[in-house]
Amino acid sequence: MARRLIKKRSHKTGLPPGSLVHVGERKAERVKISILDYDEAQLEEKEAKTIEESFPFKEKPTVTWINIDGLHEVEIIEKLGSHFGLHPLLLEDILNTDQRPKMEDAGAYIFVVLKMLYPGENKDRVEAEQVSLILGSNFVITLQEREGDVFNPVRDRIRRNKGRIRKAGADYLAYVLLDAIVDNYFLILENVGEKIEDTEQQLATNPAPETLQYIRELKNEMIFLRKSIWPLRELINGLERSESTLIHESTGAYLRDVYDHTIQIIDTVESYRDMISGMVDIYLSSISNKMNEVMKVLTIFASIFIPLTFVAGIYGMNFEFMPELTWRWGYFILLAVMALIGILLVVYFKRKRWL
Amino acid sequence: MARRLIKKRSHKTGLPPGSLVHVGERKAERVKISILDYDEAQLEEKEAKTIEESFPFKEKPTVTWINIDGLHEVEIIEKLGSHFGLHPLLLEDILNTDQRPKMEDAGAYIFVVLKMLYPGENKDRVEAEQVSLILGSNFVITLQEREGDVFNPVRDRIRRNKGRIRKAGADYLAYVLLDAIVDNYFLILENVGEKIEDTEQQLATNPAPETLQYIRELKNEMIFLRKSIWPLRELINGLERSESTLIHESTGAYLRDVYDHTIQIIDTVESYRDMISGMVDIYLSSISNKMNEVMKVLTIFASIFIPLTFVAGIYGMNFEFMPELTWRWGYFILLAVMALIGILLVVYFKRKRWL
Amino acid sequence: MARRLIKKRSHKTGLPPGSLVHVGERKAERVKISILDYDEAQLEEKEAKTIEESFPFKEKPTVTWINIDGLHEVEIIEKLGSHFGLHPLLLEDILNTDQRPKMEDAGAYIFVVLKMLYPGENKDRVEAEQVSLILGSNFVITLQEREGDVFNPVRDRIRRNKGRIRKAGADYLAYVLLDAIVDNYFLILENVGEKIEDTEQQLATNPAPETLQYIRELKNEMIFLRKSIWPLRELINGLERSESTLIHESTGAYLRDVYDHTIQIIDTVESYRDMISGMVDIYLSSISNKMNEVMKVLTIFASIFIPLTFVAGIYGMNFEFMPELTWRWGYFILLAVMALIGILLVVYFKRKRWL
Amino acid sequence: MARRLIKKRSHKTGLPPGSLVHVGERKAERVKISILDYDEAQLEEKEAKTIEESFPFKEKPTVTWINIDGLHEVEIIEKLGSHFGLHPLLLEDILNTDQRPKMEDAGAYIFVVLKMLYPGENKDRVEAEQVSLILGSNFVITLQEREGDVFNPVRDRIRRNKGRIRKAGADYLAYVLLDAIVDNYFLILENVGEKIEDTEQQLATNPAPETLQYIRELKNEMIFLRKSIWPLRELINGLERSESTLIHESTGAYLRDVYDHTIQIIDTVESYRDMISGMVDIYLSSISNKMNEVMKVLTIFASIFIPLTFVAGIYGMNFEFMPELTWRWGYFILLAVMALIGILLVVYFKRKRWL
Amino acid sequence: MARRLIKKRSHKTGLPPGSLVHVGERKAERVKISILDYDEAQLEEKEAKTIEESFPFKEKPTVTWINIDGLHEVEIIEKLGSHFGLHPLLLEDILNTDQRPKMEDAGAYIFVVLKMLYPGENKDRVEAEQVSLILGSNFVITLQEREGDVFNPVRDRIRRNKGRIRKAGADYLAYVLLDAIVDNYFLILENVGEKIEDTEQQLATNPAPETLQYIRELKNEMIFLRKSIWPLRELINGLERSESTLIHESTGAYLRDVYDHTIQIIDTVESYRDMISGMVDIYLSSISNKMNEVMKVLTIFASIFIPLTFVAGIYGMNFEFMPELTWRWGYFILLAVMALIGILLVVYFKRKRWL
Repeated sequence: MARRLIKKRSHKTGLPPGSLVHVGERKAERVKISILDYDEAQLEEKEAKTIEESFPFKEKPTVTWINIDGLHEVEIIEKLGSHFGLHPLLLEDILNTDQRPKMEDAGAYIFVVLKMLYPGENKDRVEAEQVSLILGSNFVITLQEREGDVFNPVRDRIRRNKGRIRKAGADYLAYVLLDAIVDNYFLILENVGEKIEDTEQQLATNPAPETLQYIRELKNEMIFLRKSIWPLRELINGLERSESTLIHESTGAYLRDVYDHTIQIIDTVESYRDMISGMVDIYLSSISNKMNEVMKVLTIFASIFIPLTFVAGIYGMNFEFMPELTWRWGYFILLAVMALIGILLVVYFKRKRWL
Repeated sequence: MARRLIKKRSHKTGLPPGSLVHVGERKAERVKISILDYDEAQLEEKEAKTIEESFPFKEKPTVTWINIDGLHEVEIIEKLGSHFGLHPLLLEDILNTDQRPKMEDAGAYIFVVLKMLYPGENKDRVEAEQVSLILGSNFVITLQEREGDVFNPVRDRIRRNKGRIRKAGADYLAYVLLDAIVDNYFLILENVGEKIEDTEQQLATNPAPETLQYIRELKNEMIFLRKSIWPLRELINGLERSESTLIHESTGAYLRDVYDHTIQIIDTVESYRDMISGMVDIYLSSISNKMNEVMKVLTIFASIFIPLTFVAGIYGMNFEFMPELTWRWGYFILLAVMALIGILLVVYFKRKRWL
Repeated sequence: MARRLIKKRSHKTGLPPGSLVHVGERKAERVKISILDYDEAQLEEKEAKTIEESFPFKEKPTVTWINIDGLHEVEIIEKLGSHFGLHPLLLEDILNTDQRPKMEDAGAYIFVVLKMLYPGENKDRVEAEQVSLILGSNFVITLQEREGDVFNPVRDRIRRNKGRIRKAGADYLAYVLLDAIVDNYFLILENVGEKIEDTEQQLATNPAPETLQYIRELKNEMIFLRKSIWPLRELINGLERSESTLIHESTGAYLRDVYDHTIQIIDTVESYRDMISGMVDIYLSSISNKMNEVMKVLTIFASIFIPLTFVAGIYGMNFEFMPELTWRWGYFILLAVMALIGILLVVYFKRKRWL
Repeated sequence: MARRLIKKRSHKTGLPPGSLVHVGERKAERVKISILDYDEAQLEEKEAKTIEESFPFKEKPTVTWINIDGLHEVEIIEKLGSHFGLHPLLLEDILNTDQRPKMEDAGAYIFVVLKMLYPGENKDRVEAEQVSLILGSNFVITLQEREGDVFNPVRDRIRRNKGRIRKAGADYLAYVLLDAIVDNYFLILENVGEKIEDTEQQLATNPAPETLQYIRELKNEMIFLRKSIWPLRELINGLERSESTLIHESTGAYLRDVYDHTIQIIDTVESYRDMISGMVDIYLSSISNKMNEVMKVLTIFASIFIPLTFVAGIYGMNFEFMPELTWRWGYFILLAVMALIGILLVVYFKRKRWL
Repeated sequence: MARRLIKKRSHKTGLPPGSLVHVGERKAERVKISILDYDEAQLEEKEAKTIEESFPFKEKPTVTWINIDGLHEVEIIEKLGSHFGLHPLLLEDILNTDQRPKMEDAGAYIFVVLKMLYPGENKDRVEAEQVSLILGSNFVITLQEREGDVFNPVRDRIRRNKGRIRKAGADYLAYVLLDAIVDNYFLILENVGEKIEDTEQQLATNPAPETLQYIRELKNEMIFLRKSIWPLRELINGLERSESTLIHESTGAYLRDVYDHTIQIIDTVESYRDMISGMVDIYLSSISNKMNEVMKVLTIFASIFIPLTFVAGIYGMNFEFMPELTWRWGYFILLAVMALIGILLVVYFKRKRWL
């Protein structure tokens, strides 16, 4: 898990700043470049073979969304950067896939980098993919580590011309994309919430060593989510308060809405953390309770039968002169005495509420 | 419990922003629209069949309170929004019933969303209902998830013309409604306080596995209350400091009073959290104490009788030449020796204060 | 304990704001109104039968201190309020005896509400009484829940004309009263400090189940103290920084002094909390240590005698052909072997440092 | 320990503000007044019999350092105060030896009160002595509870005219004295650090009940240090940012240096707290580990020999018809069977890794 | 470990401020002075025998990087200080090798002191070396405790004229050096992250007493890292916001990049702390689980065989009149009864899920 929090940069250390090296696993087979160009009246959609095909769109007055899946071909990023005038350090940020979510206003464009979360393969782990978004005056470039994202409903909306999207500018497109990412966090949190409930249920009814393992995993999951989500607050706030001319006033209310969602998500993450934080203590208490039960059983058995065994042992001794042994009713009297001792001890333990 | 903190939004993800979909369970059978229109001299009260019936009141100079119970009929909310000029994102907030309490000053109206708490069905859980409040120049619209609320005393006061309410404007009505909601939190906290005391009592006298369960539930309850109540501070403060012309200066002192109450409620929630936070440790200590008792009983029984049984075992051996066995007083001497060993061990345990 | 943090407001919910209802237990038999009117030259002291007797003092240029013990007769408070021009919400605050300490500058007067702490009946609990103080241009009104307070030394100083008090104005009197209340907190903290030391002592020498109970009570005590004392910081700071003309510049240094005391008290409360916070863990460790001791005794006894008993058991068997039984020294050899086994086990446990 | 955090003020409560009463133990036999008067050219050093002897130095242009050891003779402080024009509340602060470290700029002089730490008698406790420092235009007055301080190197430097000290003004002297006090904290922290290391060592190799006691003491020590040291940050910062003409610009860099040291000391205290905070848990885990060992020994012994004893018990029964007893090799077969059972159980426990 | 947090200053206490004494271990054999002087066109590299050789470079317009390995020869530092006009307190900071990372803008130069981290000898401990950096108008001086650093790639880049470095000024060189130090932290964190994963793995599969030791060490490691890394935030922020003319505007973006890295490193340290913080609890729970297992085995063995032994004991008694003993099938009936008892107990424990 600790490895999820920081990626191997070893092979990069020592290079000059702005050196473009892809940090992170290669998640995509090949780089896929999709272009969606639209205004209220028309829509052009195409998959580009080379990054150069996307360059002419920079000058067109229509809104262009260039989406790149796969970051491992560094030259593509380099060419993109030099054509769209992106700062080398920014390109480095795109390629370092363990970037902290942040927003930077570079004047001619706004750069946003954040995490897209999706459920892991066997659904018991959240995975994060880094998404970079560059908002220019009439274009949005998004860069992702691999294909498959939460943007399909947005593509649909553009294609079907639903809602404001085709009428609004690039800033609204950027907002819609951010909103899609943030909205998706709710789904992730729902999943986590269900896992928390399951674990609580287990804790209440039948705590097992596996429960401890689940708690530990939930804890680490929350640490991971927290690290991905907390910086969003500052990021969205930065966008909302930015005085950049790239963001129209009318988009402000929408950004405030995303901001509210972000706060709500952070609140929920914190509440979850609170809920998980005491679980180990409760688990420990349950185990202690169980041990108490075990000990009681042992104590009752041992405390009743050990004295009785001793009594039987006495009359098993081979002394020549043991008067009781010759009594006619000795055996039966002793059995009665033993029964009495047993009953007294049972009563004693009942009084102590151990039985 | 985790499910109480976040509501299923799954079916909503991917819709364009401002899409009106009711998020949350449907709590009311049908939507009920009540209108209360008054000034110092007159009072009109009616239940509207359609939302359109409420529209004419917007223009009347009297104060109008439109209360809507039930949010599942989205068209009603839509019509209301378009007639009263409410922003689509705001309507979305009304329908997302897991909204974080907040206040928004939209110029022509002030929008407030917060939680009304009430005791759950079997009284051992707090339930929350979302209340949205829109304050316009001469109207207040409140929207709730279901019928039944804490506003009845307010309705009474309006009807009977008690206090300032009929003389004051819509902002005072809004304050009175907020005050009713906040005042109700004290009752909820009293209930929780009693549960805490009961659990403390149990912890002190007779901690059982159920106690652990209660503690866990109290903890979750506090997490839930905290999430519902903390944002109120900012909300009320925002209202108090708002420079909106919708809030008259004279209402300021009243809002400050609600603010004080909010702080006091938050203080109490934090104190309760503090009280609960150490309970599991104390429970664990109690269990350990109990186990100690069990162990002592076992140890005393075993440590006294096991050596004695061994001695008896020796004289139960069948060696042909065991001189003691033929002694005239052998048996009685041995009994005496055993009694002595027993007494010495009892003294030893007394010294250790285990007896 | 939880009940100490919040008082029953149930019978008040739903009343219009500003409704005067006494919230809290009735602590005084009857309302006692004492008036102390003085300037440098003269002193008048009297006990008023009705609140109206105090009204003429409002206009006199001398400093007047009106002290009211007992809050249950609401009309008295009402009359007082209307004559001295106090805001209805402020009167409500006086009567809600679980008010959070706060200060309000109302222009014509400054209103301060805080807690006077005194040791509970059997000295093992701190009790709080709410004190309200209204500072006007030439009068100070104090309202308490019951007779008996920390103001007697102040009364003495006024009567005997000691120090600056008779020369200074009403603001200095208000300061002196606040100082008396805050100074008293030091005494309360000394008491708590002694209890902490006792508990630590107990924890170090002989932790018993009662110790756990003490720790729990100390914890709750600190929660209670914290809730009463923390808001003082803001309160005194507010007074010091207030730009009210009611507080003369020369009183500023004195208020700063009270502020320093407040900070010191808060520091001490936090230090105490820190000290108490780890106590349960230490208790738990002590209990575990004790259990270890118990277990060792059991293990030593059982591990030594159980194998020996087994050996004795072997030679207690009734097989017809057991050669050892017929040996001349069989019995003595076996005793020697048993002694050897016993000694070896003792040595083993000594090595393990269990003995 | 709790008593170290707050001193008995009981006998002071109720006195008018500014009443001079010495709060704290009397630590010095008699009051010792030393005067050191110097400029670059000359040096006068004398021990004054009465405080009046120091008064003429106030007017001299040379830098004068008046040091007073022993605070119990209140008249001395009173005379000093009235001659040097010190505020009565400030004199009170000097005498209350549990004052919170603070700095006050009174215009004509700057008043600083802080703690001088020194190792306790048997070196296992840090003790604190209150030092007050008054910086005037050409004099510094220091007041301590008893003789013996960390200022001797400063006195030496003045006498030997080493460094800047004789060339610089009173503010530089004040800085040098503060620096000496703060530098001494490093020594105290070194000592504490060594104790922490010793305790960690013990915890890792051989945790005993005493270890718990050490941890508890370290914890309390840190609470004490924290309370003494934290306010220094604000104090030194206040001096550095003060716009008082008493502090020359050139002294600013030196104060910033003390400030850096203070931050470093606070950082170290916090790191120490962090290190200590988890120790009890680790101790508890060690104890649990030990108990596990004890339990395993018991379980192995009991689980091997109890079944064997049972088997021996069977053949110790006196039934008339027990065919095995008459078999020729019955005894030896049984011994073999017993050995086999024993071996199997040993193998079983080996598999469980308990052996 | 505590010793790593603070260095022996004992021999320094009492010296006048600005006294140059090397605080810390001597880590280098001899002092090594390397000079690298370059501009875009030319490069001069030499190792100086005396510090005086470096002085002429101060006046040259080219960028000069003077690196000094070894701080124990105080005169070298003194001469350097007086030639380059460094404040004595600053020289003191260079020599106190437990300095808190900080940045100071002295007008003519900027002084930065921070920690270079490298893996300890046997790789299981992070070691810190103090690096001081002085940025002048056309020179950078770096001072380290010993040879060997993370600057080699920078030297390479200068020699091979790679990237911007030869074209840019001294401020860019300073940035590149800081960046090299900060980048190296990622490697250190990767190592720590791997240790955390190993420990987690151990905790999940086979917690042993050593695991506890690892956890404790990880905790202390994080305290150490935190103390070294946290102040960086402020330091880099200070550089970025500094209005010094020594830092060109174009370097700002690069500093912001280092700042982002610093935040990310701090985030990771905090996440690691979070992950480690709960580990002891989980360890404790695992131990409790194991003890439960041990107890169950003991209880099952004891509870089955102790009653059976008692029964056998009864029929081992030597009473003359025990009718069962003479029954023909007595022995076999008894064996059957014993088997039945045993089976019933096994069933009982199965039901309890202990088997």
